[in-house]
Amino acid sequence: MARLKLGVLISGRGSNLQALIDAAADPAFPAQIAVVISNIADVQGLARAQAAGIPTAVVDHKAHDGRPAFESALTEALDAHQVRLVCLAGFMRLLTKGFVDHWRDRIINIHPSLLPAFKGLNTHERVLDSGVKFTGCTVHFVRAEMDEGPIVVQGAIPVLSGDTPDSLGARVLAVEHRIYPLAVKLVAEGRARVVGNAVRVDMPDGDHDTAAQTVVINPAG
Amino acid sequence: MARLKLGVLISGRGSNLQALIDAAADPAFPAQIAVVISNIADVQGLARAQAAGIPTAVVDHKAHDGRPAFESALTEALDAHQVRLVCLAGFMRLLTKGFVDHWRDRIINIHPSLLPAFKGLNTHERVLDSGVKFTGCTVHFVRAEMDEGPIVVQGAIPVLSGDTPDSLGARVLAVEHRIYPLAVKLVAEGRARVVGNAVRVDMPDGDHDTAAQTVVINPAG
Repeated sequence: MARLKLGVLISGRGSNLQALIDAAADPAFPAQIAVVISNIADVQGLARAQAAGIPTAVVDHKAHDGRPAFESALTEALDAHQVRLVCLAGFMRLLTKGFVDHWRDRIINIHPSLLPAFKGLNTHERVLDSGVKFTGCTVHFVRAEMDEGPIVVQGAIPVLSGDTPDSLGARVLAVEHRIYPLAVKLVAEGRARVVGNAVRVDMPDGDHDTAAQTVVINPAG
Repeated sequence: MARLKLGVLISGRGSNLQALIDAAADPAFPAQIAVVISNIADVQGLARAQAAGIPTAVVDHKAHDGRPAFESALTEALDAHQVRLVCLAGFMRLLTKGFVDHWRDRIINIHPSLLPAFKGLNTHERVLDSGVKFTGCTVHFVRAEMDEGPIVVQGAIPVLSGDTPDSLGARVLAVEHRIYPLAVKLVAEGRARVVGNAVRVDMPDGDHDTAAQTVVINPAG
């Protein structure tokens, strides 16, 4: 069966891109990365893609006259590689409703919090200030509103006393590297369906039985 | 050492009250229930307290002229039993800033969501509509704003596909019955300190090492 063609959009070091590269290196993984596009030249993520033999492109937002022109160039580059699913991976440009609607239910993002809590930037700092006992990360379909959209997968971890934004961020990042490939796999296999605001995932029954037993209690933080 | 005297405020069946009664039945538990107060007569929670030989009182909000008068009667009943920590357990009256400030850092509540997400009523229904993959429950110190205040303990569980508000609520309730006694224990032992918006809990180092490894990933829901 043909593997789903991914386009990964980055702006920086691309650590989540690397997790997708590693997952797609397995021929049994149901998706492959067709192109990696950065809006900034010379970032580490582009080097990661090149090292893996993946086509890359730079679409510089500053070289385009306005956001729609920039986004048209993005769609053109994605279409040139027959991309069927767009994966935002540390892509630091806000996207217009026009672009998001064009790619509706074919564009996903990863965010370092348990959405809907802690949208936006500096999540780990705000998590620590708030005193919550759990945080995590979320892969979701993209909607026009920032960090909104049907959730595909979440991963949760306890906040520990003594955590700093850096220590907490490092533990969350390790979970991001697990849930992004999982979310891509579920979408590529057609097992994740958008129903209203939610994503229904077809799960083997055995997984359910195990999940129903899962309880994590955390008084630290 | 003297056990911390609790006053538990209820309005109904008192299932979280029962969890506290069961915990306090152990002489090693660092708190005891000095009085159970309901704003409604003849509720099941009062019968639970009586069955355990715990003093009860009914302070009927409708019998008082305004909220401050009602709350003065509550404080009077609590003081009559030398209560040092007030535990809200399904108490369905909003409290004024005056009452909450009087009991500041000596009054805790349990809420069936991972606060700050899903404040208010009908949490499980709203959790399912939102498509989040985790929910849970929270014990927090009470502030004047509803469902706000420094968090003492949270418990998290995965949302499962096929969950209804009832099935999800039943699993969350089982976790509530574990975290409320734990939160009372930590407060009674002086191990939970309010620092800014957060609660810092003194944890044995071994517990930290275990918690740092905890990751739960959920694509169901």
